[in-house]
Amino acid sequence: MKHLISIRDLSKEEILKILKLAKKIESGEIKPDLSKYMMGIIFFEPSTRTRFSFEAAMKRLGGKVLVMSGAKGSSVEKGESLADTVTTISQYCDIIVVRSSIEGAPRYISEIVDIPVINAGDGSNQHPTQTLLDLYSIEKTQGKISGLKIGIVGDLKYGRAVHSLVYGLSHFSVELYLISPEQLRLPAYIIEDVKDNFPVIEELSSVDSIINQLDIMYVTRIQRERFPDLEEYEKVKNSYIISKDTLRDVKSNFKILHPLPRVNEIEVSIDMTPFAYYFQQAKNGIYVRQAILSILLKEVEL
Amino acid sequence: MKHLISIRDLSKEEILKILKLAKKIESGEIKPDLSKYMMGIIFFEPSTRTRFSFEAAMKRLGGKVLVMSGAKGSSVEKGESLADTVTTISQYCDIIVVRSSIEGAPRYISEIVDIPVINAGDGSNQHPTQTLLDLYSIEKTQGKISGLKIGIVGDLKYGRAVHSLVYGLSHFSVELYLISPEQLRLPAYIIEDVKDNFPVIEELSSVDSIINQLDIMYVTRIQRERFPDLEEYEKVKNSYIISKDTLRDVKSNFKILHPLPRVNEIEVSIDMTPFAYYFQQAKNGIYVRQAILSILLKEVEL
Amino acid sequence: MKHLISIRDLSKEEILKILKLAKKIESGEIKPDLSKYMMGIIFFEPSTRTRFSFEAAMKRLGGKVLVMSGAKGSSVEKGESLADTVTTISQYCDIIVVRSSIEGAPRYISEIVDIPVINAGDGSNQHPTQTLLDLYSIEKTQGKISGLKIGIVGDLKYGRAVHSLVYGLSHFSVELYLISPEQLRLPAYIIEDVKDNFPVIEELSSVDSIINQLDIMYVTRIQRERFPDLEEYEKVKNSYIISKDTLRDVKSNFKILHPLPRVNEIEVSIDMTPFAYYFQQAKNGIYVRQAILSILLKEVEL
Repeated sequence: MKHLISIRDLSKEEILKILKLAKKIESGEIKPDLSKYMMGIIFFEPSTRTRFSFEAAMKRLGGKVLVMSGAKGSSVEKGESLADTVTTISQYCDIIVVRSSIEGAPRYISEIVDIPVINAGDGSNQHPTQTLLDLYSIEKTQGKISGLKIGIVGDLKYGRAVHSLVYGLSHFSVELYLISPEQLRLPAYIIEDVKDNFPVIEELSSVDSIINQLDIMYVTRIQRERFPDLEEYEKVKNSYIISKDTLRDVKSNFKILHPLPRVNEIEVSIDMTPFAYYFQQAKNGIYVRQAILSILLKEVEL
Repeated sequence: MKHLISIRDLSKEEILKILKLAKKIESGEIKPDLSKYMMGIIFFEPSTRTRFSFEAAMKRLGGKVLVMSGAKGSSVEKGESLADTVTTISQYCDIIVVRSSIEGAPRYISEIVDIPVINAGDGSNQHPTQTLLDLYSIEKTQGKISGLKIGIVGDLKYGRAVHSLVYGLSHFSVELYLISPEQLRLPAYIIEDVKDNFPVIEELSSVDSIINQLDIMYVTRIQRERFPDLEEYEKVKNSYIISKDTLRDVKSNFKILHPLPRVNEIEVSIDMTPFAYYFQQAKNGIYVRQAILSILLKEVEL
Repeated sequence: MKHLISIRDLSKEEILKILKLAKKIESGEIKPDLSKYMMGIIFFEPSTRTRFSFEAAMKRLGGKVLVMSGAKGSSVEKGESLADTVTTISQYCDIIVVRSSIEGAPRYISEIVDIPVINAGDGSNQHPTQTLLDLYSIEKTQGKISGLKIGIVGDLKYGRAVHSLVYGLSHFSVELYLISPEQLRLPAYIIEDVKDNFPVIEELSSVDSIINQLDIMYVTRIQRERFPDLEEYEKVKNSYIISKDTLRDVKSNFKILHPLPRVNEIEVSIDMTPFAYYFQQAKNGIYVRQAILSILLKEVEL
């Protein structure tokens, strides 16, 4: 494991070891010392939240950070190639975290530079550290992953976090419920890829029939822009807003996850219920990213 | 003292303890260790100067810092609520420093998040760390606050630093002279609030009659934009420009303070005189902010 | 040596001592401890690459960094003078690194503030740390500077790195070949200044006749915008693109340097040859800047 580009590059064993290490870091059992390392944050597409999570992960282990956020002021403006930009930046760093709107850019960069590369999101393609923190949050709240009933709700067509998560979950024996409007179904090629891995995989148009059986419901935003027809959007949107009423009869161990930002798909009144777990989920990202950084920098054994 | 939102939340005893701690930090008698803490700078309205002062304060005590400057690239652009943005960011931090153009935003945020919040300026409302460093600078140069004659000059109507300072000074027995053009007088409700606290409080239209009696003169910018009538502005502006000539007969302990930036209201030739104290005043901000951070993070007793 | 503003301020002895210290830092023989210092990066003109190099240099020695990149959000926008801006910022720092599009700005700033100032590029004037890392790279690859045959290729008229380098090399007994189109010759006043210092100084229009004798070839970008006539540009540009073919018969110790960013003046296929040294050259910048910071902060003797 030299880079972390796609969740699909990881074996089940590697995923489990990362989750185990994150747990030890969270509990304080292990505190890797990254004080001699420099992490470069190379975000061609800015993201305060993801940047903060990586920066906090690195700095809290003593590591140092250089930040490039947006291509402004960089040599890209002077006509420099992406390859030259990242090769030069890699001279100053021991590891780099890349975010780009261009699918495949982090993979390409990992083939050019001599240091480990972490993909922090490339277009609508991959965001593997998000998936690892999602899996960590599922296991942390339920004590296990295999054997659970998990619903994924919202925009399953365009959501990069959803695509990654489905591949991540495919290592585990979970019952998977894909709940979305017709227009925003999970792409058929993904279903084709993973369907044999799940004991149950079912597409639904509403949460109503299944929610009371779920252990985890992973909610994502439905963006108005995805609908060519605004009327179409108005028609479906209310079926995908989670209210206190929706949760009336859920199981006691039921938890709602969300990659954030949320707009209005989970009502604010739910935040104070024991079912809301999205903000703790964000916090879990620190431990998972610390585990990944420590592994890639070879400060702990995978 | 869980947050620092307004100078009006502080008792005289709390103010005195902060000043005392800042003094011990400046002298080196105390050096709090903040190395295990992460400070989030959440500046919806960018300010290099205030950011540098907080960053320097935190980093020089070993603390770590995450910076969001401006809302660009943040999830606010994706329609996320302020509450969600700060709740998420608070997962990564132990304390946050907020600056916003919206009055009341820091108070609102302090009611949402679980960690201490410092107001670093909200519109024309409050900027309490500025007031504390102003009081610190007054006491440091004069050896006391009570018993002094203090003039405040310039835009008393819109200046948030001035409003805060008047409330801050109201804990002390000072003679207060409010010197401004008619159009830029201190709001009546503030005078009403504090007038019983000062042995003398007087409004003047010129510094001439009082300057030779003053111990401290606090000068602020008069912004042309405040005047509907440009001719009006041209008429008054020269009465509020401090020149070497203005200072001919001031007391030997006399000091000029200014929250900065200065435009032209203090002539540059004064910078080299012993009366100019505005740049040292800026430096004092570090010790005062270190004291506040240490108190709110419970690394020293208030 | 209180500031570093221009390579011309340095004696040969000072240059040699900086290179020697950089070598000891690179080898690990010396590791200055800058943990009690704060470096202010004041880049009125943003530059990710130069910023990263200075930040990495400082942080890897334990130092702390404040960054202002671009004048946005700074008090310059409120009408504050440059003098006031840097005086205020200098209250928070122990050393500042300045980049500006205005020639002479770093010198002016060094005369105002009480702390050391490093020029990180002022317009097309000076960039002394670039020259020091260029000299370091020459010595590191060749074991010496005096006695070498060095070609400088490309835009010799406007290139600030080139101007500085010529002055830097003028302390050493090198044969200097200035290779450029007619329109982009080194300014006559520079040649006048230095010509007596070089045993050979020759202007050429092509690399062909000399390249096989060179030890070092320093290549710079030719910017299309420099040519009033596009046809003129099209005519010359190909003579200044270095291809594998160009390098067919070069000496075995031959190295290509480039201040970067490169656009197309060195073909990418050369990157993998032993002649390409530009990315290592960028890395050398860290050790050289660490040496300079350590000297100016008086943590090592010059």
